[in-house]
Amino acid sequence: SANHIKLPNTATEAEVLKCIASLNGDPAVHGFIVQLPLDTDKPINTEKITNAVAPEKDVDGLSSINAGKLSRGDLGDCFIPCTPKGCMELIRQTGKEVGKADILVVAAGKAEMVKGEWIKPGAIVIDCGINHVPGAWVMYKDDIEISQSCIPKPIDQVAREVGLLPDEVELYGQTKAKVHLSALKRLKNQPDGKYIVVTGITPTPLGEGKSTTTVGLVQALGAHLHQNVFACVRQPSQGPTFGIKGGAAGGGYCQITPMEEFNLHLTGDIHAITAANNLVAAAVDARIFHELTQTDQALYNRLVPSVSGVRKFSDIQIRRLQKLGINKTDPTALTKEEVNLFVRLDIDPGTITWQRVLDTNDRFLRKITIGQSPTEKGFSRMAQFDITVSSEIMAVLALSDGLDDMKKRLGRMVVASSKRGEPVTTDDLGVTGALAVLMRDAVKPNLMQTLEGTPVFVHAGPFANIAHGNSSVLADKIALKLVGKEGFVVTEAGFGADIGMEKFFNIKCRYSGLRPHVVVLVATVRALKMHGGGPAVTAGVPLPKEYMEENLQLLERGCSNLNKQIQNARMFGVPVVVAVNAFKTDTKAELALVVQLAKEAGAFDAVECTHWAEGGKGAVALAQAVQRASQAPSNFRFLYNVELPVIDKIRLIAQQIYGASDIELLPEAQEKVTLYTKQGFGNLPICMAKTHLSLSHDPEQKGAPTGFILPIRDIRASVGAGFLYPLVGTMSTMPGLPTRPCFYDIDLDPVSGEVNGLF
Amino acid sequence: SANHIKLPNTATEAEVLKCIASLNGDPAVHGFIVQLPLDTDKPINTEKITNAVAPEKDVDGLSSINAGKLSRGDLGDCFIPCTPKGCMELIRQTGKEVGKADILVVAAGKAEMVKGEWIKPGAIVIDCGINHVPGAWVMYKDDIEISQSCIPKPIDQVAREVGLLPDEVELYGQTKAKVHLSALKRLKNQPDGKYIVVTGITPTPLGEGKSTTTVGLVQALGAHLHQNVFACVRQPSQGPTFGIKGGAAGGGYCQITPMEEFNLHLTGDIHAITAANNLVAAAVDARIFHELTQTDQALYNRLVPSVSGVRKFSDIQIRRLQKLGINKTDPTALTKEEVNLFVRLDIDPGTITWQRVLDTNDRFLRKITIGQSPTEKGFSRMAQFDITVSSEIMAVLALSDGLDDMKKRLGRMVVASSKRGEPVTTDDLGVTGALAVLMRDAVKPNLMQTLEGTPVFVHAGPFANIAHGNSSVLADKIALKLVGKEGFVVTEAGFGADIGMEKFFNIKCRYSGLRPHVVVLVATVRALKMHGGGPAVTAGVPLPKEYMEENLQLLERGCSNLNKQIQNARMFGVPVVVAVNAFKTDTKAELALVVQLAKEAGAFDAVECTHWAEGGKGAVALAQAVQRASQAPSNFRFLYNVELPVIDKIRLIAQQIYGASDIELLPEAQEKVTLYTKQGFGNLPICMAKTHLSLSHDPEQKGAPTGFILPIRDIRASVGAGFLYPLVGTMSTMPGLPTRPCFYDIDLDPVSGEVNGLF
Repeated sequence: SANHIKLPNTATEAEVLKCIASLNGDPAVHGFIVQLPLDTDKPINTEKITNAVAPEKDVDGLSSINAGKLSRGDLGDCFIPCTPKGCMELIRQTGKEVGKADILVVAAGKAEMVKGEWIKPGAIVIDCGINHVPGAWVMYKDDIEISQSCIPKPIDQVAREVGLLPDEVELYGQTKAKVHLSALKRLKNQPDGKYIVVTGITPTPLGEGKSTTTVGLVQALGAHLHQNVFACVRQPSQGPTFGIKGGAAGGGYCQITPMEEFNLHLTGDIHAITAANNLVAAAVDARIFHELTQTDQALYNRLVPSVSGVRKFSDIQIRRLQKLGINKTDPTALTKEEVNLFVRLDIDPGTITWQRVLDTNDRFLRKITIGQSPTEKGFSRMAQFDITVSSEIMAVLALSDGLDDMKKRLGRMVVASSKRGEPVTTDDLGVTGALAVLMRDAVKPNLMQTLEGTPVFVHAGPFANIAHGNSSVLADKIALKLVGKEGFVVTEAGFGADIGMEKFFNIKCRYSGLRPHVVVLVATVRALKMHGGGPAVTAGVPLPKEYMEENLQLLERGCSNLNKQIQNARMFGVPVVVAVNAFKTDTKAELALVVQLAKEAGAFDAVECTHWAEGGKGAVALAQAVQRASQAPSNFRFLYNVELPVIDKIRLIAQQIYGASDIELLPEAQEKVTLYTKQGFGNLPICMAKTHLSLSHDPEQKGAPTGFILPIRDIRASVGAGFLYPLVGTMSTMPGLPTRPCFYDIDLDPVSGEVNGLF
Repeated sequence: SANHIKLPNTATEAEVLKCIASLNGDPAVHGFIVQLPLDTDKPINTEKITNAVAPEKDVDGLSSINAGKLSRGDLGDCFIPCTPKGCMELIRQTGKEVGKADILVVAAGKAEMVKGEWIKPGAIVIDCGINHVPGAWVMYKDDIEISQSCIPKPIDQVAREVGLLPDEVELYGQTKAKVHLSALKRLKNQPDGKYIVVTGITPTPLGEGKSTTTVGLVQALGAHLHQNVFACVRQPSQGPTFGIKGGAAGGGYCQITPMEEFNLHLTGDIHAITAANNLVAAAVDARIFHELTQTDQALYNRLVPSVSGVRKFSDIQIRRLQKLGINKTDPTALTKEEVNLFVRLDIDPGTITWQRVLDTNDRFLRKITIGQSPTEKGFSRMAQFDITVSSEIMAVLALSDGLDDMKKRLGRMVVASSKRGEPVTTDDLGVTGALAVLMRDAVKPNLMQTLEGTPVFVHAGPFANIAHGNSSVLADKIALKLVGKEGFVVTEAGFGADIGMEKFFNIKCRYSGLRPHVVVLVATVRALKMHGGGPAVTAGVPLPKEYMEENLQLLERGCSNLNKQIQNARMFGVPVVVAVNAFKTDTKAELALVVQLAKEAGAFDAVECTHWAEGGKGAVALAQAVQRASQAPSNFRFLYNVELPVIDKIRLIAQQIYGASDIELLPEAQEKVTLYTKQGFGNLPICMAKTHLSLSHDPEQKGAPTGFILPIRDIRASVGAGFLYPLVGTMSTMPGLPTRPCFYDIDLDPVSGEVNGLF
């Protein structure tokens, strides 16, 4: 790779010095290390070489301090500028003061002895390979290279540091662990920490750095300001990793690490959801099939079989009998009518809302016909596959506050209506217990860490366009206990503030009972210029010049969106800190203008951030603003009372948050309002399925549009998760693969086992 | 549950004694423990009570020995019959001598302090719950209860015991770990241990206990005869766990534990295969779609885009160019014709053999139409979903002998033919690296343990009816190194000897280069009676009386099948030990007859086994016979040379192994012979897809039929895995759900998190 420069073993002092000079001049090089050739025939003045490194590229003064400490004996037959122990001690002392990940030279082949114990979290350790392969010059730039070059702390150490007990932690290798819910019980009398939600202005299709800001903020609070801190983020879908989008671990020097673990299977939670979701789907169609092909008595004999002469209802069947108002427990005591009611779910195939899922971008499964094998006797129907993260079970996972609560939600998921118009649930199918069993590991939050060694919970990732798009209640709750009263939990809400934040408040906080202290609103000059009328921003196409050059006029105009999103956050009574995520093309005047306008719009504070390039150091000012804001009075309130009629709740969101003048219900939506109200689901909170690219329903409407009528095409229900989701326009729930998917560049080194090409 | 009896805290001595007496008389009770009430107001003579336990129910003499050693101080405020430490020491001394899992009383609330360190593997530890809840009587019967009542050794301890180094092991919680392939490299100069394969006679649909025998044999060799030993078994498909079949961890006192981990997600290997398999499927259809809707130039511009002004082929694209005979690396240098060849895989949709998979029993996906959304512009086609374990990627995993080998196999999987009749591979699709990345954890074998604490590798589980049905080469290889020259690795081959064993030898051993020392052939009186003309044996239906009463005539006649399977094993030059898996309904005369006939048929030895009821103790005689047989001369040979024509190889298997007089190729099969021979795949070994319920193709033909013509309906190729699989009849690759699936009984205790109802 172009980022790895190797000098031959025979390099002379002059060649080494020349190489240093060229690296000194390269702005892309954050820092670098010098592994001197072993060859003793060519004496090299190590002090001269280490002093040649430009001060800003020098790794925290290592070279100058250690140049005088050369020792051969400690290191076998390697010459390096200092002993590993000396380096480590120095890194430990100085490392805490620096913003970017440190870089540390290690004797060839000696990385093992220093891993973990000696080194500051987030430091980059370069093992120059096996013994006798000296002369390596290394620098790092790409996300996966930065991530892989950082040796994370052993995750059991992270767990100890945050105060978890050994039996509350299940290790999954060295870099991931699951945390038992028993921790929450143990800490129930501990006061909660400060609860910070990161959201953003209406973004461009490229994203404005919410994840990166979340990571940068916790790195700053934890590694730089020495606060107890936790980031809580969503687990990304694996499908897009191989499609267009790539990974989602943050970026630059603000990442969750190892990013390949984060972006791939992690600990299998999404796979568990796939399995659970599809068990329900298989049960729906199999049940319809068996009801269509059997008499009441045959069904009853099979559903309640005689085992060694004894017929017995299972627990879940007794629950169904109770739901039907049949208070009997003896299978022989049911009347014919009761048997009929019991055995026939009588699902109306036209009302099935439960879809199959896969965590793969497979566009050919968007609409399919199933049941065409002769074994299914002609009972085929249209169906579809969605991406797994859009499964209601993902939303259930994210909103559950314990095993018992999750099981209840899993059991009340509605899969269809019966021909009599009653909701048919997963519990009616007899599958609740099996779903809970499949999800029993997934319910435990996953502990990981940032590049700077601060703790992260990665847990749940509901689709932001048809679900609420926030990470799990359980992770937030455990983290709030672990950080303690003065600590901070930073959680990210998907999409812009009009969607992710609104749902965070009205759905997630409503179910969790947690109250946020600060909203961090991420803005970029790029997105604001787009809102001011700049040309379209498209993935894969070079940015137009408006975005590469100063343009204060476009920028000021676009701040209408920033202003509206600030008002949206303030509507909930929570102080807002605006994080201006600086790009290298932004000018000082541009950044200053955004800060000024944000403050004028009522933000508690507004701060420039450079964490992408600098790590936590670049977000220290943001962290300090968040600390101050968390002391300010917060007077949290919901936007609506759930007992309001469905239409009124939708209208409130449309008018207050989006700026619509009114809503318009299309006939299907109107029917669903009637149906769900009749079925008793009218008092659920509302989860709008709207584009994130505009405050309105039209992605082309930038800025802060007003006066529009928001059309509601249809309404669906996620009764187990606990919300109704009105569809504003068409939401794709199954991404596709482009002509050249990301997977062309993804590879595995068959010798080292390292993953290449993820980004 | 009926298996847990609790006495109230206020129980008197007389009530306790009465309860003991009733348990003494219950044949279902293997043993039990006494937790005496705490209440000091009601003095109880502990010696009297412990002496009241019937000797055979007494847990290895614990009570009588410990009755005199009551100690209050050691245990806080609990009275129990002995100190935990005393119990543990005794269990450690006596436990090795007993066959069934031991039962051990532990002071209320003190289980934590004794877990793992003190206790013999396989011992049952009863923690009578929280403090101050005394008076519990407990006994255990069901598989999951036996499994859950056994506290497994911490898996890192198992890893240490077998000689793995800490950095070769990735813990997945306390009971599962992945083992790095680096262990194989480290041990490459270590001699291999003895290699034992467990197979069976042609089974009834109920199964004859191969898995249980595999576990029993390693428990006997390891925990009783103190040999280094490893069991290597397949990971079961999760789908059937919720359908009809239930779990597959063995049974009774011969189980892999914890069985709920073994039967559910394990460490996610099958989920990884689902993801990898479906990425290929999505790539196939997306590629066809993009080729159908774009010009050569548009495709080329997208496949080899200009990034910052530079066009570059990725590594995998260069491989495709080389395959096409185009030795260019500059994207601008290709001619129009070369561009056309490069961009168009030109897949003939009618030849697609790559199917989507799910690890769910979903019969409605057996035949489907995909691509019916308007976004796919009418390019719909028929397709199907199979169960994940039937994916070629599972077979690849099982046959790979390293990361590099796996990557190569993943890249040469054939998904279809082009319209020019050339095979289109996963490498042509550009997806090899991504598949390897998705499989990089799955390639590492999973370490677990038996109820008696002997080590087990659970790794890969290819479908036995369309693939080779054997666990992984890598697990066997690592295990053979770990046990050392005098140790034993016991691996199981799926289905009967005519299928699983034949494929074990001709496919698995051919690719691995490993040579087996002993075949263990499992037989039951039940199955042999069926082969002798007994009535049909059907799951879920009570066994006819022929199977419950002595019937030497049926039995003797049925031994024709045993005889043929012994000859089948001997044909490969390996000594055969017959394990007669005894059921409680078998009579002494029946068991003796099988042993006698097996020896007459040429078995090295034949032994009765009672491991299901007794654990390893019940398989000690079998283990000793295996030890002797492993010293006997073995002269392994393959049945056929792979260079023979395809038809000859199939005929050899049909005639030699099945007893057919000849084979008959139907037209589709004949076409495939021509196609695959032309495409260069004619020299692959053969993997027959035949029913396991008869030596012939007709499941009704029991015993050892001869003179039949074996019809070959079609032939398919798993080129990456490395075999051709002729279809003899129709093989279902997607099970369904019955009217009352297992999931009705499966539940999760929301307080303890325990799984109930798995079997």
